[in-house]
Amino acid sequence: MSTYPTLADTAARLDSGAATSLALTEQALERCAQGEGPRTFTRTLAATALAEARASDLLRAAGLARSPLEGLPISVKDLFDVAGHATLAGSRLLQGSAPARQDAHIVQRLRRAGAVIVGTTNMTEFAFSGIGLNPHYGTPRNPWGREAGGGGRIPGGSSSGAAVSVTDAMALAAIGSDTGGSVRIPAALCGLTGFKPTQRRVPTAGALPLSTTLDSVGPLAASVACCALLDAVLADAPLTPLTAAPLAGLRLLAPTNVVLDGMDDAVAVAWERALSRLSQAGVRIHQARVAPLQDLAQINALGSFSNAEAWAWHRPHLQQHERDYDPRVLSRILRGRSMGAADYVDLLRLRRQWQQAMAGQLQGHDLLVMPTVPVVAPRIADLEASDEAFFAANAAILRNPSMVNFLDGCAVSLPIHQPGDAPVGLSLAGLGGQDALLLSAALAVQAALG
Amino acid sequence: MSTYPTLADTAARLDSGAATSLALTEQALERCAQGEGPRTFTRTLAATALAEARASDLLRAAGLARSPLEGLPISVKDLFDVAGHATLAGSRLLQGSAPARQDAHIVQRLRRAGAVIVGTTNMTEFAFSGIGLNPHYGTPRNPWGREAGGGGRIPGGSSSGAAVSVTDAMALAAIGSDTGGSVRIPAALCGLTGFKPTQRRVPTAGALPLSTTLDSVGPLAASVACCALLDAVLADAPLTPLTAAPLAGLRLLAPTNVVLDGMDDAVAVAWERALSRLSQAGVRIHQARVAPLQDLAQINALGSFSNAEAWAWHRPHLQQHERDYDPRVLSRILRGRSMGAADYVDLLRLRRQWQQAMAGQLQGHDLLVMPTVPVVAPRIADLEASDEAFFAANAAILRNPSMVNFLDGCAVSLPIHQPGDAPVGLSLAGLGGQDALLLSAALAVQAALG
Repeated sequence: MSTYPTLADTAARLDSGAATSLALTEQALERCAQGEGPRTFTRTLAATALAEARASDLLRAAGLARSPLEGLPISVKDLFDVAGHATLAGSRLLQGSAPARQDAHIVQRLRRAGAVIVGTTNMTEFAFSGIGLNPHYGTPRNPWGREAGGGGRIPGGSSSGAAVSVTDAMALAAIGSDTGGSVRIPAALCGLTGFKPTQRRVPTAGALPLSTTLDSVGPLAASVACCALLDAVLADAPLTPLTAAPLAGLRLLAPTNVVLDGMDDAVAVAWERALSRLSQAGVRIHQARVAPLQDLAQINALGSFSNAEAWAWHRPHLQQHERDYDPRVLSRILRGRSMGAADYVDLLRLRRQWQQAMAGQLQGHDLLVMPTVPVVAPRIADLEASDEAFFAANAAILRNPSMVNFLDGCAVSLPIHQPGDAPVGLSLAGLGGQDALLLSAALAVQAALG
Repeated sequence: MSTYPTLADTAARLDSGAATSLALTEQALERCAQGEGPRTFTRTLAATALAEARASDLLRAAGLARSPLEGLPISVKDLFDVAGHATLAGSRLLQGSAPARQDAHIVQRLRRAGAVIVGTTNMTEFAFSGIGLNPHYGTPRNPWGREAGGGGRIPGGSSSGAAVSVTDAMALAAIGSDTGGSVRIPAALCGLTGFKPTQRRVPTAGALPLSTTLDSVGPLAASVACCALLDAVLADAPLTPLTAAPLAGLRLLAPTNVVLDGMDDAVAVAWERALSRLSQAGVRIHQARVAPLQDLAQINALGSFSNAEAWAWHRPHLQQHERDYDPRVLSRILRGRSMGAADYVDLLRLRRQWQQAMAGQLQGHDLLVMPTVPVVAPRIADLEASDEAFFAANAAILRNPSMVNFLDGCAVSLPIHQPGDAPVGLSLAGLGGQDALLLSAALAVQAALG
């Protein structure tokens, strides 16, 4: 499905001498200066990246590979601290803030594992939408439909630059954050694979928060296998070879309510085709109404964890700098202002109840399956022109993936469209802590659909 | 107290350009080939170490330091897997075993943090004594008393080569393992600082086990501050600046029973002087009988966790290779053979009770304090000549530190002798998980005694 180079293939080229980390890095940096590059990165890190690449080539020549990421160019979303630079999180507000004193924990882990950090990627301001528009730094265009003119399609967000950095070969993989789908949405809309781990699996230290309750850190890359390698480094987990789960007997629960609402034709066609192929491969797909999904909108009606927690973080900034914010982000932050402490306490309690209800629904099934996003990428111009269109698209696009964050679960989005068609993503999701099972099943599903 | 260079001072020399990692590494490797070198290392890793040093110099020139260990030569005990080499654990038995396929988890973390791994250090066979004699690879001599002739003094064990690699400037720091004192004993006898973390703090994956229940992984280095930096990398913990705890009001419990038994004059003088100085600095030292200490010998009378778990690991090897073992190690392994499953179950239960009793004793105190080892380093020749002398010294030397492993606690041993005198160590110990408090207090204590 995906035509992007995998980490393993590129590592093999490095091992065989067909490529060097320095050459890969130079090529990536060249691409950062062209085309979508300036809208994709808030900064490139050429000097340190080239030094990392040279050091990596030296180590590889001595037989040392610190990890499967050795020497591979990787981008990080600009909400992760990079020592010596101000973390912008796609905002204008933070342009004058103090440079980070040390790398975010996951940036440290990536560098220590031998990854070459090519730069920090553009994003929705403060990560607070699933669309990927950014009025300050521009919006990187989705690789699909770019030639057709008309200003292009949204990349999805909030990890917009993350996705385009990979599709446009400015990085071999990207690290994003996912609070309500911000890794999986751009992966789905741009034809990549994205993994949202269980939140506690990867440390968020040194990442600018959107929702401290829901924020998680995950990769976007060419394949499930790539995401698993990246995740092992992000989680500092022992590197065990990922094996595909047997498809025969895999039991997937496919909700028929909520997650299919408003599905457009392109998504519906790809979705039905994928389910049919998986059934043929022996997967047992149980299509059923999953009652608790109906309750989510009501549970969050007075405001979400993101609303409350973003308001808590931004409150001190907003008094003086309200005009520096993207108004569409600002309006979502300000929703938290009217939430009382008791509303938040209720939300915590309702979440626990909902999680238990969902665990009950999943009994007898291994994983959930659903379209990542019910629509293909809308046009940038349409959403820039209309607040109504923007917020409608944002709600539709966040709806499915955000369920997994509320569940404290884990999920993979993998591409299921035909080559040349609009990218469509299928999501597999599991309960919190089922990351290994999920990745193993996703690997098999990707192979069956590929 | 310690005259060895610290990690921070050496890193500052690298930062200022007064030294390069390549030069430090070349010097370390030169020393490995001289004097105690061949008895201190079971192998050096010159090719990879030089590549790591060159890579490190490149990164530092670009302003990148992956950790405070960037470019610093460090040795690892030869029970940690190093990819491409057979892990020997000081044995002859394993010389023909398969090369490790990947680095032990902590070796991976060290390399990723920029440490230069100079080689694997000699040790008591299978880590099963506190003395440090090794009949297969020789015994590295304690730096103290070496000039006096007579074959020298024991380095302490089991991390014998670890200690001498640091005292003889073959490495700036060493990583050892500690099951009953194997980090703290050689640190104490050789005049270094050693830290045994709470077991769960540092992963043992890829380390050859002695006792899966008691094994822990820790550093030996010039100072408490050095050990804290090393520990942060070993534990993949966020690097927070270590601040010294206020000495005024620090409450230390100094047991008067068991831990002072058989103390020789040199230790007694250093111990009394240290307590007196700490009291003057405002530390509240409560000297009291700690009843549960009396019970330890009886609890382990039928055999220890090390006996049972070493027998479980070695049983398949012993059938054919009994003659390859150091007989003194073999006799301790064979003690596990007579232990029944119920003896082991009893030991687990008695340990939990003892831990609760000790936690009760510690109420109202911050930490325990005791001499690490009650004697100064015996002569190698005396212990080689007599099994009786060997086992008596081994029991005396393991007695105090092994209490902390049984407690599942954490401990620092720091030097308290006068320059030129026989090295003597003082141990501070805390309950499991109190590593941060312990290091902070040890930093203050070391400053007060320095």
